[in-house]
Amino acid sequence: MEEWLKDLLWRLNLVKNMNQPDGFTRLGYTPKEDESIEVFKSEAKRLGLDIHEDAAGNVMARWEGENPDLPAVASGSHLDTVVKGGGYDGLAGVLCALGAVKKLKGDGFTPKHPIEVIAFRSEESARFGISTIGSKAMTGLLDKSIGSVQDFEGISIKEAVSHCGFDWDNFHKAERSEKAIKTFVELHIEQGTHIEDHDKDYGVVRGIATPIRLKVTANGKAGHTGTTPMHKRHDAFVALSPLVEFVNSYTKQLNEKQNTPIVATVSTVDLKPNVMNVIPSTVEVGIDIRSVSDELKQEVAEAIRQKVKKIEGETDVTFDVHELVNNESILLDDELQQSLVKIGELEGLSPHLMDSGAGHDVMNMSVKWPSGLIFIPCEDGLSHHPDEFASLADLEKGVRLLTQYYLETAKGV
Amino acid sequence: MEEWLKDLLWRLNLVKNMNQPDGFTRLGYTPKEDESIEVFKSEAKRLGLDIHEDAAGNVMARWEGENPDLPAVASGSHLDTVVKGGGYDGLAGVLCALGAVKKLKGDGFTPKHPIEVIAFRSEESARFGISTIGSKAMTGLLDKSIGSVQDFEGISIKEAVSHCGFDWDNFHKAERSEKAIKTFVELHIEQGTHIEDHDKDYGVVRGIATPIRLKVTANGKAGHTGTTPMHKRHDAFVALSPLVEFVNSYTKQLNEKQNTPIVATVSTVDLKPNVMNVIPSTVEVGIDIRSVSDELKQEVAEAIRQKVKKIEGETDVTFDVHELVNNESILLDDELQQSLVKIGELEGLSPHLMDSGAGHDVMNMSVKWPSGLIFIPCEDGLSHHPDEFASLADLEKGVRLLTQYYLETAKGV
Repeated sequence: MEEWLKDLLWRLNLVKNMNQPDGFTRLGYTPKEDESIEVFKSEAKRLGLDIHEDAAGNVMARWEGENPDLPAVASGSHLDTVVKGGGYDGLAGVLCALGAVKKLKGDGFTPKHPIEVIAFRSEESARFGISTIGSKAMTGLLDKSIGSVQDFEGISIKEAVSHCGFDWDNFHKAERSEKAIKTFVELHIEQGTHIEDHDKDYGVVRGIATPIRLKVTANGKAGHTGTTPMHKRHDAFVALSPLVEFVNSYTKQLNEKQNTPIVATVSTVDLKPNVMNVIPSTVEVGIDIRSVSDELKQEVAEAIRQKVKKIEGETDVTFDVHELVNNESILLDDELQQSLVKIGELEGLSPHLMDSGAGHDVMNMSVKWPSGLIFIPCEDGLSHHPDEFASLADLEKGVRLLTQYYLETAKGV
Repeated sequence: MEEWLKDLLWRLNLVKNMNQPDGFTRLGYTPKEDESIEVFKSEAKRLGLDIHEDAAGNVMARWEGENPDLPAVASGSHLDTVVKGGGYDGLAGVLCALGAVKKLKGDGFTPKHPIEVIAFRSEESARFGISTIGSKAMTGLLDKSIGSVQDFEGISIKEAVSHCGFDWDNFHKAERSEKAIKTFVELHIEQGTHIEDHDKDYGVVRGIATPIRLKVTANGKAGHTGTTPMHKRHDAFVALSPLVEFVNSYTKQLNEKQNTPIVATVSTVDLKPNVMNVIPSTVEVGIDIRSVSDELKQEVAEAIRQKVKKIEGETDVTFDVHELVNNESILLDDELQQSLVKIGELEGLSPHLMDSGAGHDVMNMSVKWPSGLIFIPCEDGLSHHPDEFASLADLEKGVRLLTQYYLETAKGV
């Protein structure tokens, strides 16, 4: 199995080894993503699976089983990456699910329910600023008006999918019925170190912390840095800068006060005019707040609003706070969580019950079907980076877990 | 005179009125700057001046006087602007000097010394990041190696000057001998509000505060904003942000402790990767420190270095402090300052003795010749902005001052 995993890991990544200093760049709806999908299809066929491609380009590799009319037991993830990303984010879930099918086929198992390995399209927001396009289409959550959104080269989503042979106007046809799927489990690298920190083998995710995202703008007044005295300034950057430290310290303290993790980050900044001899007139920062507790997220957002008001009262700089995103966090299926814990016990692997700070395709799938999320460890929690790494031993653990999942869920009626 | 000033103000600005919402864009060594220079030449000829263009494209409009072998009494400034700048910065100095010549000619004055109105080329750093190219060439301060520096379109200085008909390799020929000029006085809009704040008519500048410029880089560690717990972060932006407030408050206090003005500004920021779901790994800020006291500038720079060390000791983020620029500040000629004060008295105008926080062509001229700098008020101190404004009344005061300067300095032997 290890040799097979290593070989397929390389092939899905379109490389001859994993030592790639510039990382992996397979943006959604590009020829590189296509190429990886083709490798997936051909390997799935070799394993005896039937290939179904939907109107959005998602691929279902399907083992019909004894009763093709029963809802499918599904697993999968995505094959696209960010720019100069790692070779495991997304890909590990597709790889391990294929590995599980290989194992079950080798063991002579015959499922009652159909089994599916799904490769979703364009999960990362790296190209269009919009994530999980494929799984949104599959679950009917896609907002077709985003077709005009453009990438950094000015290519719209509509154009990009057409270059890959798809028609944006048909994307709604990718939606599947509730009866099509029994359960969906995604396996993903953790992108954190909770599993390792707790000395466990894998993670079973209870909830996915979707973000509240705020854009805070400080409006001061430009002026020549050499001719404007200190006491006559309305420097937007000076006024806003305490907010950066505040977001960090407030959120840190909130973690100490209670048990549900919450994180908040001032992650972007746009300063104008950003010229050495001009006092900053405007600063805009982006703040990303995440927790599975929507209440905690609201609390941080509210604390930021209060802090901004306080700064406004103390300076001659005015502020705007704009809510870019406010998605309710997602709690995954309870029963499926229990079964993903049991599956580990069958394999002698110990689970860590945890939350996910990052979004995944399973977020969309969970809206329609009972869904679960398994994490396998990745080194130092590093992700979206050329050095992202998950060991073959951990990938093999992933295969064993998904094997048990397919086996336990597809065998019954 | 007012009508003439208004008409020439418009013509030098290449417009039909001063209400230009997009401001004025005449970058150095572009056809627009050429066009304005041509207006200057033709008006100077109309006033009976001889036109001399040097190898760098600076134009000397010269009134030979009784003894052409005597050193010239010169005044002038520049006609280029920043992008979307104002119509008075630089141009006012050329306009008022021409106005003074017109006045003297009208009064039937005959100078003993030659009188010159100089239009310098490319004073603003807006195009190439390098300021006062023309006056550097005239004073022999030009570093020819900058010829390869490119603008935002990839055009080098060498190419740009050649498009205007000049040869970069000949720029050293623009250098003038010490004997060529007796004194040089630049008139400029204040770009601040000191004159108005002190209820005076014009400013006589004692010293020019050239900057120390620092680049401070904070090196933290990227990570997913959703999956990296607060206590495991090395957020470069959180670590660096207190520095912004520190620079401001430290410098403010320094002004309260002593009498020489000093200003310091964190004016630029470059955050990496600047992506909503990634913790900032690197933040680079640019800091501009200005005072006529080099000692005070050093004190602020040193305080910044100490603060950075303190932050380093308290966080897991490392810092680099790099000195980009450290020019000694310039003290203008004492005797000329006194005479610029007297000139005002003759005209019934009250001077405000002050320092300049911004650099001007006179900085270079002062290295070689006794030089002075006069400020006229500009509304709200606004400059480098479409709304930059100096009244015709203030421009006329400028004409009167320069008329007296030419008269007093050129009449003797």
